[in-house]
Amino acid sequence: MRTVDARPLSADDLALADAHWRAANYLAVGQIYLLDNPLLRQPLAAEHIKPRLLGHWGTTPGLNLVYTHCDRLIRERDLDMMYVIGPGHGGPAIVAQTWLEGSWTDTYPGTTLDERGMRRLFKQFSFPGGIPSHVAPEVPGSIHEGGELGYSLSHAFGAAFDNPDLIVTTVVGDGEAETGALATSWSGCRFVNPATDGAVLPVLHLNGYKIANPTVLARIPEDDLDMLLRGHGWDPVLVAGDDPEEVHQQLAGALDDCVARIRQIQDAARSGSPGGATPPGEVHWPMIVLRTPKGWTGPEEVDGVPVEDTWRAHQVPLATVRENDAHRRQLEAWLRSYRPEELFDEDGAPVASVRAWAPTGARRMGSNPHANGGLVSRPLDLPDPRDYAVKVPGPGAELHEGTRPTGAYLRDVIRANPHNIRLFGPDEVESNRLGATLEATGKAWMLEQYDTDQHLARDGRVMEVLSEHTCQGWLEGYTLTGRHGLFTSYEAFIHIVDSMFNQHAKWLKTTRQLDWRRPVPSLNYLLSSHVWRQDHNGFSHQDPGFIDHVVNKKAEVIRVYLPPDANTLLWTMDHCLQSQNLVNVIVAGKQPQPTWLDMEQAGLHARRGLGIWDWASNDAGDPQVVMACAGDVPTMETLAAVSILREELPDLRVRVVNVVDLMRLQPSSEHPHGLDEREFDAIFGTDVPIIFAYHGYPWLIHRLTYRHTSHEHLHVRGYKEEGTTTTPFDMVVRNDMDRFHLVIDVLDRVPGLARKAAVLRQRMQDRRTAHRAYVNEHGADLPEITEWTWPQA
Amino acid sequence: MRTVDARPLSADDLALADAHWRAANYLAVGQIYLLDNPLLRQPLAAEHIKPRLLGHWGTTPGLNLVYTHCDRLIRERDLDMMYVIGPGHGGPAIVAQTWLEGSWTDTYPGTTLDERGMRRLFKQFSFPGGIPSHVAPEVPGSIHEGGELGYSLSHAFGAAFDNPDLIVTTVVGDGEAETGALATSWSGCRFVNPATDGAVLPVLHLNGYKIANPTVLARIPEDDLDMLLRGHGWDPVLVAGDDPEEVHQQLAGALDDCVARIRQIQDAARSGSPGGATPPGEVHWPMIVLRTPKGWTGPEEVDGVPVEDTWRAHQVPLATVRENDAHRRQLEAWLRSYRPEELFDEDGAPVASVRAWAPTGARRMGSNPHANGGLVSRPLDLPDPRDYAVKVPGPGAELHEGTRPTGAYLRDVIRANPHNIRLFGPDEVESNRLGATLEATGKAWMLEQYDTDQHLARDGRVMEVLSEHTCQGWLEGYTLTGRHGLFTSYEAFIHIVDSMFNQHAKWLKTTRQLDWRRPVPSLNYLLSSHVWRQDHNGFSHQDPGFIDHVVNKKAEVIRVYLPPDANTLLWTMDHCLQSQNLVNVIVAGKQPQPTWLDMEQAGLHARRGLGIWDWASNDAGDPQVVMACAGDVPTMETLAAVSILREELPDLRVRVVNVVDLMRLQPSSEHPHGLDEREFDAIFGTDVPIIFAYHGYPWLIHRLTYRHTSHEHLHVRGYKEEGTTTTPFDMVVRNDMDRFHLVIDVLDRVPGLARKAAVLRQRMQDRRTAHRAYVNEHGADLPEITEWTWPQA
Repeated sequence: MRTVDARPLSADDLALADAHWRAANYLAVGQIYLLDNPLLRQPLAAEHIKPRLLGHWGTTPGLNLVYTHCDRLIRERDLDMMYVIGPGHGGPAIVAQTWLEGSWTDTYPGTTLDERGMRRLFKQFSFPGGIPSHVAPEVPGSIHEGGELGYSLSHAFGAAFDNPDLIVTTVVGDGEAETGALATSWSGCRFVNPATDGAVLPVLHLNGYKIANPTVLARIPEDDLDMLLRGHGWDPVLVAGDDPEEVHQQLAGALDDCVARIRQIQDAARSGSPGGATPPGEVHWPMIVLRTPKGWTGPEEVDGVPVEDTWRAHQVPLATVRENDAHRRQLEAWLRSYRPEELFDEDGAPVASVRAWAPTGARRMGSNPHANGGLVSRPLDLPDPRDYAVKVPGPGAELHEGTRPTGAYLRDVIRANPHNIRLFGPDEVESNRLGATLEATGKAWMLEQYDTDQHLARDGRVMEVLSEHTCQGWLEGYTLTGRHGLFTSYEAFIHIVDSMFNQHAKWLKTTRQLDWRRPVPSLNYLLSSHVWRQDHNGFSHQDPGFIDHVVNKKAEVIRVYLPPDANTLLWTMDHCLQSQNLVNVIVAGKQPQPTWLDMEQAGLHARRGLGIWDWASNDAGDPQVVMACAGDVPTMETLAAVSILREELPDLRVRVVNVVDLMRLQPSSEHPHGLDEREFDAIFGTDVPIIFAYHGYPWLIHRLTYRHTSHEHLHVRGYKEEGTTTTPFDMVVRNDMDRFHLVIDVLDRVPGLARKAAVLRQRMQDRRTAHRAYVNEHGADLPEITEWTWPQA
Repeated sequence: MRTVDARPLSADDLALADAHWRAANYLAVGQIYLLDNPLLRQPLAAEHIKPRLLGHWGTTPGLNLVYTHCDRLIRERDLDMMYVIGPGHGGPAIVAQTWLEGSWTDTYPGTTLDERGMRRLFKQFSFPGGIPSHVAPEVPGSIHEGGELGYSLSHAFGAAFDNPDLIVTTVVGDGEAETGALATSWSGCRFVNPATDGAVLPVLHLNGYKIANPTVLARIPEDDLDMLLRGHGWDPVLVAGDDPEEVHQQLAGALDDCVARIRQIQDAARSGSPGGATPPGEVHWPMIVLRTPKGWTGPEEVDGVPVEDTWRAHQVPLATVRENDAHRRQLEAWLRSYRPEELFDEDGAPVASVRAWAPTGARRMGSNPHANGGLVSRPLDLPDPRDYAVKVPGPGAELHEGTRPTGAYLRDVIRANPHNIRLFGPDEVESNRLGATLEATGKAWMLEQYDTDQHLARDGRVMEVLSEHTCQGWLEGYTLTGRHGLFTSYEAFIHIVDSMFNQHAKWLKTTRQLDWRRPVPSLNYLLSSHVWRQDHNGFSHQDPGFIDHVVNKKAEVIRVYLPPDANTLLWTMDHCLQSQNLVNVIVAGKQPQPTWLDMEQAGLHARRGLGIWDWASNDAGDPQVVMACAGDVPTMETLAAVSILREELPDLRVRVVNVVDLMRLQPSSEHPHGLDEREFDAIFGTDVPIIFAYHGYPWLIHRLTYRHTSHEHLHVRGYKEEGTTTTPFDMVVRNDMDRFHLVIDVLDRVPGLARKAAVLRQRMQDRRTAHRAYVNEHGADLPEITEWTWPQA
């Protein structure tokens, strides 16, 4: 692997770098262990030690080392640099560094830059009422928790897109590097436009061990590792050793080399010749492979067993310091090995030379405004959704592809906000009928282009890569640094990022409690290839459970929308693109479906989130049955059922309720969008059967509504894991959510229909049977099903 | 990239190979388009065409090509070979090939090897009542659906482990290759023991395009691709072209080369010198990079637009064949270009030379017994769990780490079944207290070992890699080929494989309907680092929602167990390791917890799945309140609450119900383990408050029980997304599931306690407040909490 021979640090700078690193390491160890006596002004006693020792030492000295050296780089070159920490367990490092540079105290003025502040800094770490052990939202300068591993690089790329002057230094742990999300995210460099995007500078930190095992990348032959990274499009520089002076020099030289190379790549791309011979996707971007011991500078051995440079250094190397005098003496020696008396003054503040090592103001990585994205966020300039409305001559009179008008709307959003929004998707933007966006922009592509290619462009705003992890990570990084975006995907396969969604929702929940974190744009999903229209792909593509997963997270950060038609979707999208600090999930089909509401009605309906559809009801304020629906396909089946009931049982008083905003179904005590009991009862009644056709798994509706009075009258139809490659209508039949079965459900539940009901019930069964027979013979739905429209008044 | 110069096919073999490939391609196109006239005995008319054209042509000719060439290889060398198809959308290819070789007709005798059978084969494809469009469980020879992309290689490795004679040829799509799961699964070769495992032979198929975009790996410079694969530990051979004769020769030569190289690696490892100089993990295994046009041999252009070798060939290249005469003529010409009259005889059967191309019997890839794992599966020889029991002097009298005895049990399971079980985990086997297994085996490690390493071994049965995707994929492949396994992980991060679980559960559901698929061992999860004991890691590690996710799948394939103590866990594990065709989720903590039941009681309790704990109840058959609990921490808090109630309100009749098998809570109509209404009422009563302390999100209990009579009396406590780095007891306090709050819940709900209740209520609140204050000062729980034991009678 390539090395850099330069040894750029003067003797003074070398000493200063080392002092700064020692200071940060001292502060990190102090956080893990000390409740008091932060400057070791007294001999270390049991009562100075925390009762529970929590934290991860192993990765910490490496994180500190890179931070310290980035400080020099930023200072000398006035760089705009962020720091993304893959091994997010190393919280003590970043807390230490941001305190040293003053960012911590700027954010939390109570934790002053003196002995009192240091004591507080130490105590609060991993302490009830304090801060978590990982790089959590509480840490200034971070956009990445790293509790769950694998997302550092995709977050970093998301931050770098459209920030041409930004360099995102990203430490990738060698444990993290084994995850799928990380393994595929290396190829993010193939999607960076050196002319208009910033750069990601990965530092693959080979400290050799996970919790209890060696790591794969640290043990494969170094030539293999070199080829692996080169193959991904990188040009790695090796920095390796366990002698601090030597490693300081190597790392300083490597960083100089990398930044020079980044500038060279960017300058070439920015100084004209945009169509140069080598596509930018073939450029090999610089990166660093840092091979240093796990738990470096910590105890070499504990109780006769090697610790430094083994997996035993992962968490707390000395585990019983409060009880065991020998351990406590060893801890004291360890702390004193950093020579704190040289690093902190009488008051406990870092000495001037240590303080001066860090850059100042917004150049400090703990104060970089991009890492508090709300500071730099600009709202979108949004067109009027009315301009994209589908004309509706009457409810349900015409069929329209639900997502296509939203495609046109998004096209103009992109035109009006060229560097402030991107669309992300695993190769589905066109198949989801958002192709109009490609009139305004291209799909980002930096590799070679062929004559037969279409819509590829180096400055494309549509990012397509067949990795949901990468799409999600890029979008998270993009929104956390203040920009806007939309992730469009298959409903079933969005489960691939269940866990990433969890982490992001948890991040948002926490940031809402931190005043200094300014609100960032919401993370928006459009799930358009949904469960009911995966009839062509079959069972493996049929799963509406992402909604259930999302609803488990804190009510204040999640929203789920099921617009029933194209116009309602337009309003919903407009609303989501204006929102902040939320995760919005929109599920809306792309296939031709009846359009129910004109644009004004749709606007009102979307704002209300749910409502009685008077034009479809004949209940005169006193329904015998409520037909509720949420989702485009359930809405169509419900209205088709209602039209049968209106014809067959014209005296039956039916009320139709449509739900767009699923959270409206919860009690107001549970969700900010919830209805209060009076409102809920006014809409759903208190004593009549409610037949609810729902897009997803039926039990979710029970879960949301079980506290409501009328819950005992609720009967829900939805997807119950029945499906295969078949026709669209056969899908609803297999799951008993078809119009005929909904009619049967009404007949079974409304009292007093006995005589008429028996005949109609049989006819409905016969129609189901007849349809099944037709489908099995012809492989297609009956035209009377596919061409059905709501009967005009 | 390396190429092989050999051109091993004689002129005859070349012609035969091409004929076989043409036959398979013809049958694939026929499946996509034809309802009738399968042999084109008449001119193609509209009525011969399916009304809905579904299927994926683009990947199909490549899948057929590799299959055809594997046939020669198997025949000439009598190989034991399976075929795993990453681009699982290419169902028509494998259906065609298995029909040609006779496996399809052996499996489905109605689909004969003649014209009638061919018509049926064509019609059934992607047709209601027929078979799905992808490589679904219905396809003989497959263990991998590939609807959701990314798992082909990890499935292949799982199949190859402990099958020393097996070669698993695995086509990896270049779209699939962009996913995270696939990207990290390349390093599976670092975990293959050439002495005792079989081989995986990947064929990376660069057909260049996804649905609407080029693929990354097909467009990066070929040198980069070569380095990338070499870096992962492979030795790729390039096969590229669009001239069939040339590609046949190249591919035949490359496959000969790869198999020879595999045998060379294996022979070296198997012929002694096991401690040779080069660790087996440094071996570069052979693989093939196959660069052929997408939709090769299909229409070059349609309506003047290029199709072959572009993304437009992805699905159905000619879309309106029924309506458009020109398209229909083009389809006919396309079908006739394969010269079916040379390939099929008068009766429609493949001609003798085409039939003879394939191997016979169990050597046919569609009939390989490993791919119908139940055929080769052997039950585990299990020790008596009683031998590992924790002694229980009295309920709750002592604390034990819940998982440690199960570690000893698993150690002896491994000893008794050395090649029939493996444990999988992302570096957590020891931290989950299953370290006893390492007395019987090592952790599989083929790379270099250092002196400081522990428990690494080339023949280790414990597989640890920091990728939940890889662990899950390996285990799926291992169980689908008939072997046994357990995946142990953090509860929160098992969400990483939500989507893989979905696919596996769907696979199992479908296989249960296919008599010819023999039952395979269940897929078992042990989630031991669970939500309540992630207090040290904090909020990012706290998520019990995997259970919710699992419960959405078909009741007949899923089970969830929450054993309350070490002995019940032993019985539960014993039960799960004997089960078949299920996904078993066991959640059990590893921290010291009270042990409630002696081994016989625990056995009875585990078999019943739930029950009244008489020793903890004083209800005399007529409770005033039911205290229910599921999960180890909720059980402890419930019994602590009961002990307070017994002391403070000795006359209050309390019944304690503990739930191990969560599915027992559903009605019997919903789940095979469900209680009928009479049983449920007998246990939970019909008119008294039920205070239910549950391990996960509380609403799941409502969802499972809402149909039961007593649901209106149910009040559930559980995790409600409140947490941080804090103490264990503070976690339950933050979520209102602590003993004091459970007492308050009782006081608030049992009628007639008013006077006593007010005083006790206040005392409970005071204890909560006092505890919070203690924790915030000391950073640890009060000893009276951590040392609490159930009062002995």
